Amino acid sequence: MKKTISVLVENHFGVLTHVSGLFSARGFNIDSLTVGETEDPSISRMTIVVDGDEKTLEQVKKQLNRLIDTIKVIDLTEEDFIDRELVLVKVKMDSKNRSEILQIADTFQAKIDDARKDTAVIEVTGDENKIKSFIEMIRPFGIAEAVRTGRIAMGRK
Amino acid sequence: MKKTISVLVENHFGVLTHVSGLFSARGFNIDSLTVGETEDPSISRMTIVVDGDEKTLEQVKKQLNRLIDTIKVIDLTEEDFIDRELVLVKVKMDSKNRSEILQIADTFQAKIDDARKDTAVIEVTGDENKIKSFIEMIRPFGIAEAVRTGRIAMGRK
Repeated sequence: MKKTISVLVENHFGVLTHVSGLFSARGFNIDSLTVGETEDPSISRMTIVVDGDEKTLEQVKKQLNRLIDTIKVIDLTEEDFIDRELVLVKVKMDSKNRSEILQIADTFQAKIDDARKDTAVIEVTGDENKIKSFIEMIRPFGIAEAVRTGRIAMGRK
Repeated sequence: MKKTISVLVENHFGVLTHVSGLFSARGFNIDSLTVGETEDPSISRMTIVVDGDEKTLEQVKKQLNRLIDTIKVIDLTEEDFIDRELVLVKVKMDSKNRSEILQIADTFQAKIDDARKDTAVIEVTGDENKIKSFIEMIRPFGIAEAVRTGRIAMGRK
């Protein structure tokens, strides 16, 4: 089962290596990881999505809590949360399919970041399902490049 | 000087730990790091923003190229690129400041993801300057929580 973990850490170098090392040492593959500053620049927040068994994950969470730079570990899987991801897609475009591509972008409330004669860079945000649907819709036109941020999440409470 | 590096890697466990370890071993603090799937799920793309001297970074880039799971290292600092970040901000809101907050959100083409009696979760995307301006505008209302994805980037060519 996929789990979304949020970890508040001191913004020191090496913290990222320690945290990702805890997961890889136990053979957990990280589906997505993001790390960014919080409202306090001395504190970073990592959002980690992993797929693994409950028992091993409990052990990793305990070890995370023991790291000197860890401030707080939040298992968002246990609460109601909002998750979002940002994706940039460079799609092949010509005069024949332009209006169809722009219409799809519009349906998904996506933004056109860069339009050229033969390509467009489209920026889309949403939860896992929305991103998946968008990529499926746009794939037939030919994706030249795609970059994803990985997911961030926040409890609704 | 801030540098934006994009690394295409095989989606194996431990790769993230190896890559972040190369930076932390040389005392580089990673400003932001994201890792997400590409259009090919067996390949992940990392976007790393670091602040450090040119010479040491050249060494890290060489080492990155030598990692068995590295497919390609792209130093985006050397070309024209688009960079974007997604931020979720939970802001305190009441009947007095609601319209002002919604107006700021509108100006920044931000979306309201969750609105409650006393808070709203606002989703905003943009480059570094836009995100910075948005946070500065919204801060006086009281930020309860903020999560950032870290930056992703794509060459315009």
